[in-house]
Amino acid sequence: MKKIFNLLILVVFASFTAMPQARAPYPISPEVKADNSTTFRFLAPNAKEVLLTGEFLKEKQAMTKDDKGVWSITVPNIKPDIYPYAFVVDGIQVADPNNTDIFANERFKFSLVDVKGSTPLIHALKNVPHGKVTYRLYKSNATGTTRQLLVYTPPGFDPAGSKKYPVLYLVHGGSDTEETWTKVGKANLIADNLIAEKKAVPMIIVMPYANVRPAPMGKFADDVVDNIIPFIQSNYPVLTDQPNRAIAGFSVGGGQTMEIGIMNPDKFAYVSAYAPYPETQEFRQVFGDWKPDAAKLNKQFKLFSFSVGTEDFLYESTLKNMAMFKEKGVKYESLVVPGGHTWMNCKLYLTNTLPRLFK
Amino acid sequence: MKKIFNLLILVVFASFTAMPQARAPYPISPEVKADNSTTFRFLAPNAKEVLLTGEFLKEKQAMTKDDKGVWSITVPNIKPDIYPYAFVVDGIQVADPNNTDIFANERFKFSLVDVKGSTPLIHALKNVPHGKVTYRLYKSNATGTTRQLLVYTPPGFDPAGSKKYPVLYLVHGGSDTEETWTKVGKANLIADNLIAEKKAVPMIIVMPYANVRPAPMGKFADDVVDNIIPFIQSNYPVLTDQPNRAIAGFSVGGGQTMEIGIMNPDKFAYVSAYAPYPETQEFRQVFGDWKPDAAKLNKQFKLFSFSVGTEDFLYESTLKNMAMFKEKGVKYESLVVPGGHTWMNCKLYLTNTLPRLFK
Repeated sequence: MKKIFNLLILVVFASFTAMPQARAPYPISPEVKADNSTTFRFLAPNAKEVLLTGEFLKEKQAMTKDDKGVWSITVPNIKPDIYPYAFVVDGIQVADPNNTDIFANERFKFSLVDVKGSTPLIHALKNVPHGKVTYRLYKSNATGTTRQLLVYTPPGFDPAGSKKYPVLYLVHGGSDTEETWTKVGKANLIADNLIAEKKAVPMIIVMPYANVRPAPMGKFADDVVDNIIPFIQSNYPVLTDQPNRAIAGFSVGGGQTMEIGIMNPDKFAYVSAYAPYPETQEFRQVFGDWKPDAAKLNKQFKLFSFSVGTEDFLYESTLKNMAMFKEKGVKYESLVVPGGHTWMNCKLYLTNTLPRLFK
Repeated sequence: MKKIFNLLILVVFASFTAMPQARAPYPISPEVKADNSTTFRFLAPNAKEVLLTGEFLKEKQAMTKDDKGVWSITVPNIKPDIYPYAFVVDGIQVADPNNTDIFANERFKFSLVDVKGSTPLIHALKNVPHGKVTYRLYKSNATGTTRQLLVYTPPGFDPAGSKKYPVLYLVHGGSDTEETWTKVGKANLIADNLIAEKKAVPMIIVMPYANVRPAPMGKFADDVVDNIIPFIQSNYPVLTDQPNRAIAGFSVGGGQTMEIGIMNPDKFAYVSAYAPYPETQEFRQVFGDWKPDAAKLNKQFKLFSFSVGTEDFLYESTLKNMAMFKEKGVKYESLVVPGGHTWMNCKLYLTNTLPRLFK
């Protein structure tokens, strides 16, 4: 019978591409080569113009069509990283239909290309022990709905063991979702790798969904404090004291991180804002009158930090935010690196934050 | 300080839509109304023609453009269910950029619309205890790679408790991914609801990634038996005897289910194929010579079943498959319902299978 089934297997495979659904012919895209050049392909026999847009490009690039209607372009020598990209087909932006990896977002549909390079990067899937990512549903009284969050538990995590873990609450950007930090930011793999290298301590990372539209954004702060933290504390073996709780976030999530952290210094010892939004002028409006007990705050925070790229549209604003905290005597650290308001930079910020936590 | 931050919250919210990224103006889409009519919108000022395609439509429908360049259409009275849809913009198929819910698939990018109706369907997020879905990485010697699978654990699951659970291995269709059964098929919510209604027993559901291209598809059978089952058995409190193991799958995954089930009747007591591929002619080629010990097989299988829709392109083929098993004396059950080769039907098949398992 084994032999029969070997034949069956071949038949199944051979006939796969002949399925009567709309799946043939399809081009392979993206095709990342050993020298980091990458070919992107898109089937559109009737399109007049197809462009490639991507965060590894300074500007959109024209693609060329072959006699089968497949548009393609090879981009040489891309610096290894994970980048969002899309096709612009006669003016309409389209995700790559042949690529499973999609940027988790509410307002656009970029695909993701992983240019691995010859040396595995910190976000690579390496041969190390892996943690788990669990999708949980919880009741949010703050928003009146059942919401989803993701929980990273580190390698070796034993839910019934005696070890209790510190917790990082990690917040996505303004139109992202609770999946963006894993699907785009590879937070789980970065944590796996830093823990394997003994650069970060084993921790639980909670990735909530931070948008509460059309309710006021501030409802998210209530959700974190009133619903999410208690949910995690009643479902996971976690340390519940202030020195074992951190929050970090990007863009609008960086603003939420600052807000939640500063409102709750008794709850969070580590507060890290990555290119936080809103811009300084708006922060000044409300922070202008704010007279913090800086000495107390500086004792409470083991880390209060800003990370930003010099090409980020929020670069100047982040500098001004920092200056404002300086005026008020609130200590902070900063990480200023090249790069823009991107998830390539987010991975770098997280990679720099994790080793600082819970030590 | 509380007051200051309330103001900050308002400012953050008010300024959100003014972010200098490409996010305004965007239309709301899809907008499902109380009467199940649904409006779809797509911003494309320069497009010449925008059509709506969706599995709730018999054929593509033309959309109309307003003076702001937003194309829209309202489809009345959609039968409540979750449907794939997309826009066809001057001939190019595009997922809805304003909808987060994407069909997890390797070869197309459909969006999903959830027409809930007035009575919650079996796949709805109801006010019942919820299980968890965990993303796990495991080493697959069969394919020589580290692969991802999803594990549903039921409400009340205690990884360290004395209760051990039966396991269903649930396989996606040919170009789907390990996420399709949860993101499109809502397997976790269907299980939550059936368990809450006491129609299904608490079980673990393992959703592997079943494609092994370009390796022969048969490698997946090896992966299940040699890697996935041992991985689950060493990481979860599961029952490891044949009566407590089931396999089910759709389309190419239905063919894989038949193959794995029939090759391993000592391992699986329940084998359910949903609109299995390949078609009968190919099965006949290999099954023609197959002389099963039907009496033995009929004792081993507590359930061997086929589910298919009368409009499925594999309907006739599935009938012929069943006739072939009948000729050979192999007993089976069948569920034949209206509908096509769709994930609306998949949810129905799973809803009918789960209550049959492990009783």
